[in-house]
Amino acid sequence: VVVPANGHISIAQRCAPFLNEKQIVVLNPGRTCGALEFLNILRKEGNKKDVTIAEAQTFIYASRGMGPAAARIFRIKQAIPVAAIPSRKTEMVVKKLNVAFPEFIPAASVIETSFNNMGAVFHPSITILNLSRIESTMGNFQFYIEGVTQSVAKILEAVDKERVMVARKLKCANVYSAIEWLSMAYNVVEDNLFDAIHSNPGYVGIMAPRTINVRYITEDVPMSLVPISEFGKIFGLKTRVIDSLIDIANSIFKKDFRESGRNLSRLGLEGLDLSQIRNILIKGKK
Amino acid sequence: VVVPANGHISIAQRCAPFLNEKQIVVLNPGRTCGALEFLNILRKEGNKKDVTIAEAQTFIYASRGMGPAAARIFRIKQAIPVAAIPSRKTEMVVKKLNVAFPEFIPAASVIETSFNNMGAVFHPSITILNLSRIESTMGNFQFYIEGVTQSVAKILEAVDKERVMVARKLKCANVYSAIEWLSMAYNVVEDNLFDAIHSNPGYVGIMAPRTINVRYITEDVPMSLVPISEFGKIFGLKTRVIDSLIDIANSIFKKDFRESGRNLSRLGLEGLDLSQIRNILIKGKK
Repeated sequence: VVVPANGHISIAQRCAPFLNEKQIVVLNPGRTCGALEFLNILRKEGNKKDVTIAEAQTFIYASRGMGPAAARIFRIKQAIPVAAIPSRKTEMVVKKLNVAFPEFIPAASVIETSFNNMGAVFHPSITILNLSRIESTMGNFQFYIEGVTQSVAKILEAVDKERVMVARKLKCANVYSAIEWLSMAYNVVEDNLFDAIHSNPGYVGIMAPRTINVRYITEDVPMSLVPISEFGKIFGLKTRVIDSLIDIANSIFKKDFRESGRNLSRLGLEGLDLSQIRNILIKGKK
Repeated sequence: VVVPANGHISIAQRCAPFLNEKQIVVLNPGRTCGALEFLNILRKEGNKKDVTIAEAQTFIYASRGMGPAAARIFRIKQAIPVAAIPSRKTEMVVKKLNVAFPEFIPAASVIETSFNNMGAVFHPSITILNLSRIESTMGNFQFYIEGVTQSVAKILEAVDKERVMVARKLKCANVYSAIEWLSMAYNVVEDNLFDAIHSNPGYVGIMAPRTINVRYITEDVPMSLVPISEFGKIFGLKTRVIDSLIDIANSIFKKDFRESGRNLSRLGLEGLDLSQIRNILIKGKK
């Protein structure tokens, strides 16, 4: 399933009557808690079969839509972690995927794929803090290289810290800071995010979106920031900067992304404690 | 007293030993709750005399510092509301001011001068939502005309709504929305803030600050947004967008503007109810 994460619900609803035990659904990518949400929708729609749902940590291609029914692949990413719910099925899923796509590798669980979702850190912050610039230039500047100034980088670091804090509390097996991730994914070794982003040749030439009505907000706020904030809430962790970005996005779009996004109720996690939540994410049941 | 509002505390501390019954201090301007904070500092420093403290709603000049010990006045504003604590002294203060400055007019109370502080609405929002642009162009764009795009205007409207909501709850005698204020101050009549700002010739040519370390944040976050948010808290009103801007500013400056700003404790309002608060602001005592 290759759609922005805010499309997962409708895909799940449409597939629910037809999916059976032998089938595997891979969300490529799932953003944060995509596999769990997909599974919840199947159950709500009355499908109680043991369908295998998996999610990739990021999309396998660095690519852009170039027009109706046309996309351009700039690069195939290496080593994309994938995990299934329950995680004992991950190896089987990856083996099947590897027949066509050798780039997929197994992750410890969907906690890892969901919380190492770097779009959550980069996309909404950079977009919101470049609001007027995107609108007045129609995105005519380099999103990462020009859009991330010293202060924007400070906000990215704050969002990243909140994400890592929540992931740690969930006992995420491998949680990478954005700086660590940049060094793994792009071989950039710097001691702060501003320098790391600015010395990454992979970011050169990536332009800003032409409008702020873009998946960097409409996908990454409800499907990435909202679940991180919601998990923070369960554990009594304050995610002030993430919450601020959600509130500002709500205000711009006159929507409630907390309501439409992956909140605790949609994820079926209300009232549960840490070990119950980990069991659901890792084993598929409380 | 003509200093950014974050300088009021230190001025009050230095003046405290010397001020007496016959003297009048006018904060020009006070931002939100300047007179109340000044009075609290005098009391804390042991000055129990009946000094008259007043605040102007905005600075009397449209002006900019042009260098060390040099300022340029572009325009003298007309009809600047002023109020004293207690408000029965306002008329006396305005009469004295009018000898030199006929532009000052009496306001109902400091509730009016504090909550019609439009800097709170315009300054931090536009600055934060133009963060990368200010830093990468060193402020080389028109702050209002280019910096306020459609989405930025939506955030301004949200902040303004929250300010008006808190002021109404405080039973502010005359509370103006930003749109009403623009029509009074600049004769601009439009039905939305975007159009009102863009059709205001008074905003043409006003450039953005050259850095984000500027009073639009360092003064207006702690001395305008923080007190509005704090009053909201007393009344159980949610000021989500204002709070978001405070949190983002905190994160950029690695400070706690709620702590250093005009919070309930600094204003001496902790644990009080609406009528006690109104009495303090209007009569100078509970």
